[in-house]
Amino acid sequence: MTVEPVLIANEWRPSQSSSTFQAENPATKQPLEPVYPVSSWADLDAALAAADAAATALRQTSGEQIARFLDLYAGKIESQTEPLVAMAHAETALPAKPRLAEVELPRTTGQLREAARAARSGSWRLPTIDTKLTIRSCHAPLGPIWVFGPNNFPFAFNSIAGGDFAAAIATGNPVIAKANTSHPGTTRLFAIAAHEAAIAAGLSVGSIQLIYRTSHADGARAVADPRTGATAYTGSRAAGLELKAVADRAGKPIYLELSSVNPVVFLPGAVKSRGEQLAGEFTASCLMGTGQFCTNPGLVILLAGPETDSFVAAVADRFRAAPVGTLLSKGVAQSLEASLNTLISAGAKLLAGGTPGGGNGYCVANTLLKIGGSQFLANPGLYQTEAFGNATLAVISENAAQAARIIDSLEGNLTGCVYSDTHGSDDALYDDLAGRLRHKVGRLLNDKMPTGVAVSPAMNHGGPYPATGHPGFTAVGIPAALRRFTALECYDNVRPHRLPAALQNKNPTGTMWRLIDGNWTQGDVPS
Amino acid sequence: MTVEPVLIANEWRPSQSSSTFQAENPATKQPLEPVYPVSSWADLDAALAAADAAATALRQTSGEQIARFLDLYAGKIESQTEPLVAMAHAETALPAKPRLAEVELPRTTGQLREAARAARSGSWRLPTIDTKLTIRSCHAPLGPIWVFGPNNFPFAFNSIAGGDFAAAIATGNPVIAKANTSHPGTTRLFAIAAHEAAIAAGLSVGSIQLIYRTSHADGARAVADPRTGATAYTGSRAAGLELKAVADRAGKPIYLELSSVNPVVFLPGAVKSRGEQLAGEFTASCLMGTGQFCTNPGLVILLAGPETDSFVAAVADRFRAAPVGTLLSKGVAQSLEASLNTLISAGAKLLAGGTPGGGNGYCVANTLLKIGGSQFLANPGLYQTEAFGNATLAVISENAAQAARIIDSLEGNLTGCVYSDTHGSDDALYDDLAGRLRHKVGRLLNDKMPTGVAVSPAMNHGGPYPATGHPGFTAVGIPAALRRFTALECYDNVRPHRLPAALQNKNPTGTMWRLIDGNWTQGDVPS
Repeated sequence: MTVEPVLIANEWRPSQSSSTFQAENPATKQPLEPVYPVSSWADLDAALAAADAAATALRQTSGEQIARFLDLYAGKIESQTEPLVAMAHAETALPAKPRLAEVELPRTTGQLREAARAARSGSWRLPTIDTKLTIRSCHAPLGPIWVFGPNNFPFAFNSIAGGDFAAAIATGNPVIAKANTSHPGTTRLFAIAAHEAAIAAGLSVGSIQLIYRTSHADGARAVADPRTGATAYTGSRAAGLELKAVADRAGKPIYLELSSVNPVVFLPGAVKSRGEQLAGEFTASCLMGTGQFCTNPGLVILLAGPETDSFVAAVADRFRAAPVGTLLSKGVAQSLEASLNTLISAGAKLLAGGTPGGGNGYCVANTLLKIGGSQFLANPGLYQTEAFGNATLAVISENAAQAARIIDSLEGNLTGCVYSDTHGSDDALYDDLAGRLRHKVGRLLNDKMPTGVAVSPAMNHGGPYPATGHPGFTAVGIPAALRRFTALECYDNVRPHRLPAALQNKNPTGTMWRLIDGNWTQGDVPS
Repeated sequence: MTVEPVLIANEWRPSQSSSTFQAENPATKQPLEPVYPVSSWADLDAALAAADAAATALRQTSGEQIARFLDLYAGKIESQTEPLVAMAHAETALPAKPRLAEVELPRTTGQLREAARAARSGSWRLPTIDTKLTIRSCHAPLGPIWVFGPNNFPFAFNSIAGGDFAAAIATGNPVIAKANTSHPGTTRLFAIAAHEAAIAAGLSVGSIQLIYRTSHADGARAVADPRTGATAYTGSRAAGLELKAVADRAGKPIYLELSSVNPVVFLPGAVKSRGEQLAGEFTASCLMGTGQFCTNPGLVILLAGPETDSFVAAVADRFRAAPVGTLLSKGVAQSLEASLNTLISAGAKLLAGGTPGGGNGYCVANTLLKIGGSQFLANPGLYQTEAFGNATLAVISENAAQAARIIDSLEGNLTGCVYSDTHGSDDALYDDLAGRLRHKVGRLLNDKMPTGVAVSPAMNHGGPYPATGHPGFTAVGIPAALRRFTALECYDNVRPHRLPAALQNKNPTGTMWRLIDGNWTQGDVPS
């Protein structure tokens, strides 16, 4: 049996593995060749040693050189579109077109190129210069970053090609990617391209490394290792909180993107004036990617009334009529079924779906559940159980005051949406409910579904705990997402020629924004 | 027995206390009147309830109104200079002049006024506007902030007047101050002034509250309470890490400033060319405030040689000749003696001091210890034991390579200094050692002692764990210190009139810096 090698210290080498695993095609339930290693601590230790050395080298590497790597890598990914799409489709059952080839792949290369621009300008450093006191500071790389990628975006959040990877390397940190175990083949293809690009760009050995899988214990040891700078994790809440506990104890930053039910509130005027349109829009967002988006609307809050009844019935009809997508893996299907059982056992009423099957491979019928507001409030934690996949819970509030209490009972979420009419009849209610929802979510939307996460400097793909580990950081959006992987470094009375380029009098890139004596400028320090 | 009331929900009310305590004059070892309460959970719960309500009100309060409060408060403090200085002198034994009256008090009012300017301009929000995608985001208040102030700056880091207080309230968060138990009377005087200023400025009930002391268990419960936004803690490492563990488990941000030995490296050329001058400068920094500064140089690294021997001897002479200051409390004296015992038992050689007494009240002779580089490297963790107070450990490295290993073995610190000559003889060594030290400290200095912490936008009073809990944040410096107490809030497709003022097309203050479509500007969004 041939076991795939891991990428450590600039070479594809045999893993010191404790066991092996294979991916599975979720549409056929058949295992996929080849066989991948479950790395032992020896692999992780070797990767950390190489990354530690690379961290020192990368601190001396210019933003321009890192940008060249990112641009080269993006080009290589584009030239590998066909095999990447084929592999990801086999491993995830996500549609080859438009999803993988036309949406997610361009997003991925776009992110890498945007990270390249950020590395070139260096504005992410927030250089701050006090000429009177001769104190200067800027953000700087943290050191080796572990990236644990999720199952649901094999390209755009891939541990060796996605947003966290791009943010970590753009800021001069070595990355050790831990592949998501449901798409190791896709991650391997990316790693080959990344490795070639890194060699072509002359990045230091150990800047980019890959392992496929490891034990929970070794993963925990890795995030707490003294050589680790920080960790980025996107995935299940239980596994993420285990890593968080270990990282926190070791004083190591960890950025988590965990569960989120992404509440959507439809105010009565909106339901009344455009219920049919909204039912379509809402259903599309709920079922997009078979509901496997971090920002999937898993909870919808409505006010009781005849229009709401019609709206809910229309959504249920659409759920039943829509094709049933394949889930990403057996694990996702099992977890979705378990969550649905939890909700149904707790009294949620089934309006559509609820049963396994109905499509190819691992799948569960598109599921719409309903519960009354009083019942929700009797155990809000339980009814916020995330049912990751094509399932949504409708909460029917008896009145506005109860809707306010429901919102107040919500945990932290990535997003929250409020739909209202355009004639003012919902305005007072909007002010109350959106005001409450604002502080429960990272991104507040009006009249728009949350599933799109635009790559914009103004984006916040983050939110209050337990959606993430800290409400001040975003995983998407440049430069904010980049600063997660940095330390603030201050130079007090340091002799001018010893300052890093970003803090010297001359603006090193000509495009770097710096806060000089209280003013943001792309100019030099006035002499 | 009259017990001082606590400040909860806009009134000075009797504490629901479990017990009481008194401050002590460390110079006379005599207890000071009056008697202060140890609050039970009932007090903390009431304060949290009031702060929770205030948080909602403060979010609607303009930066201008908060600035008025801060300015009024600064003025009231100035009008209370005499009683404040007298009380702080009695409670801490810090010199009334120049330290308390002429240095620390003006620094405190200066910080409050700078926070007022920041609240007025609103630039701390980092508003980011993407006009093409209609996504806008900015930083916003987090909610009730607990401030646990340290013993060593009764004014400038006071829990209800210092930097953390100013940062939390300037960003629109209610503050619940927990007085440092060694200076409750000073804190009470501040709270009276703050309360009056809050009423005069019309701040919401519950914006500013004070308790004096509570049990460790109730303190831990408070930082993890669902109503808590975040916590700022400056103090001992052991107590801080206990709070961190609880806050981390609850997903609540906590900003810690813990221990730091602030390594100073004197390169051979500097010692040779200006050893006498440096011995004076170094001794002054070591003994300033009886060594009770967070940035006190507790560890000095030198290269073995005759000039180093003379330098160390000169410093020892100066330590012996200098007056012995009074320590802040019995606890500080006990802890210092314990740390010295640890270091001496581990083999550090006593060059000066080492014995209790020599001054008024609680004191320990100015203490200089020495150890060889090899011995240090045999147990670097042990020899980095912080001896908070007027004590410093000199590490004599055998050669440059060993000095590099010593620096590599250091824990995270707030500051690190390198002194070098001005003729180039130290340059190669500087590049190696300063490069290593850079990533162990928040602030790197050249030819300057670390004890001064200028209030500058470019300051970093922070550093890698365990100096603080996160290497990206600073406790001093506006606006960076302010952003610790904020969440990132994004508005996606939100109707323009519903946006917060900071994100509307018109710049609401005229001075707010905003990142509009990639450019920093104080202008409006171009129409």
